[in-house]
Amino acid sequence: MRVVTFGVANSLDNFIARSDHGTDWLTWTDEVAAISAEYWKTIDTVVMGRKTYEVALKLGTSSYPGAKNYVFSRSFKAPPNANVEVIADDAVAFLQRLKEQPGKGICVIGGGELAHSLFEADLIDQVGVNIQPVLLGSGIPLFLPSSHQLNLELAEHKVLKNGCVYLLYRVKR
Amino acid sequence: MRVVTFGVANSLDNFIARSDHGTDWLTWTDEVAAISAEYWKTIDTVVMGRKTYEVALKLGTSSYPGAKNYVFSRSFKAPPNANVEVIADDAVAFLQRLKEQPGKGICVIGGGELAHSLFEADLIDQVGVNIQPVLLGSGIPLFLPSSHQLNLELAEHKVLKNGCVYLLYRVKR
Repeated sequence: MRVVTFGVANSLDNFIARSDHGTDWLTWTDEVAAISAEYWKTIDTVVMGRKTYEVALKLGTSSYPGAKNYVFSRSFKAPPNANVEVIADDAVAFLQRLKEQPGKGICVIGGGELAHSLFEADLIDQVGVNIQPVLLGSGIPLFLPSSHQLNLELAEHKVLKNGCVYLLYRVKR
Repeated sequence: MRVVTFGVANSLDNFIARSDHGTDWLTWTDEVAAISAEYWKTIDTVVMGRKTYEVALKLGTSSYPGAKNYVFSRSFKAPPNANVEVIADDAVAFLQRLKEQPGKGICVIGGGELAHSLFEADLIDQVGVNIQPVLLGSGIPLFLPSSHQLNLELAEHKVLKNGCVYLLYRVKR
């Protein structure tokens, strides 16, 4: 089974963006780039929700190159991009099938809503956070309320020079 | 001015207790004890809300010895304890006065509600978390929505053997 990782940058109060989807408070440094590059070698697939993809499009990132990109939406018409496929099927059922196919790891990007349904279906194997040194006060939450507890195991950690804290957890089953 | 620290143990999804105030998921190890003992040398005062104090009483901790304990409540009648004083005044005004008096550091314990009013009044100088490797899914939130952003500076960090991550931040002003 392929390993599914939910990875995000978050504030200490667990927001992934401001209420208006702003991410101006996020920092990107050589250290983050190095961690991402190492992680990138372990995956070949990126899945995301429609809202996350629209934010990415606005930021000029039409897709993650070198990986197959899936965007979940029942109605969204994405700009033509050979690297991006819009999936109208149920995200949980689709990811369940994807996990069973041969391939490298799968990365779930961004949004709390998609991740929430995948957490509820117990499809997430790893959670990676890069905690930025800020309390935003409000915004789009990283974790939505869940019906059950997930125990984690700290697998990797790195404290970055700019005060960000990268933590990778494995879901214990 | 005395340094005010808001310190808690939290889940990765930022709960400080289950919805029923349960803290069975918290771990206490020699490493945490050592960090607490070092920190304890820097303070002489503990402030907490009524709910936190009631939880502490149930756990058999009637007060933090070696420090002056203040519990904020307009109506609560605490069991007699020479070390504990119930404060019916406004918590913000009281802490403002306390900060200006001579003395060592002040620790704000537990509850999101008291901490929230102190954050809003810009009275908190440090935030210490001990992130436990668990997603609780629901519970009592560490941070309540705030009207303004607080930028932080990572001052101390330690990754514990059991996968807990201790982080101490200073509020940047």
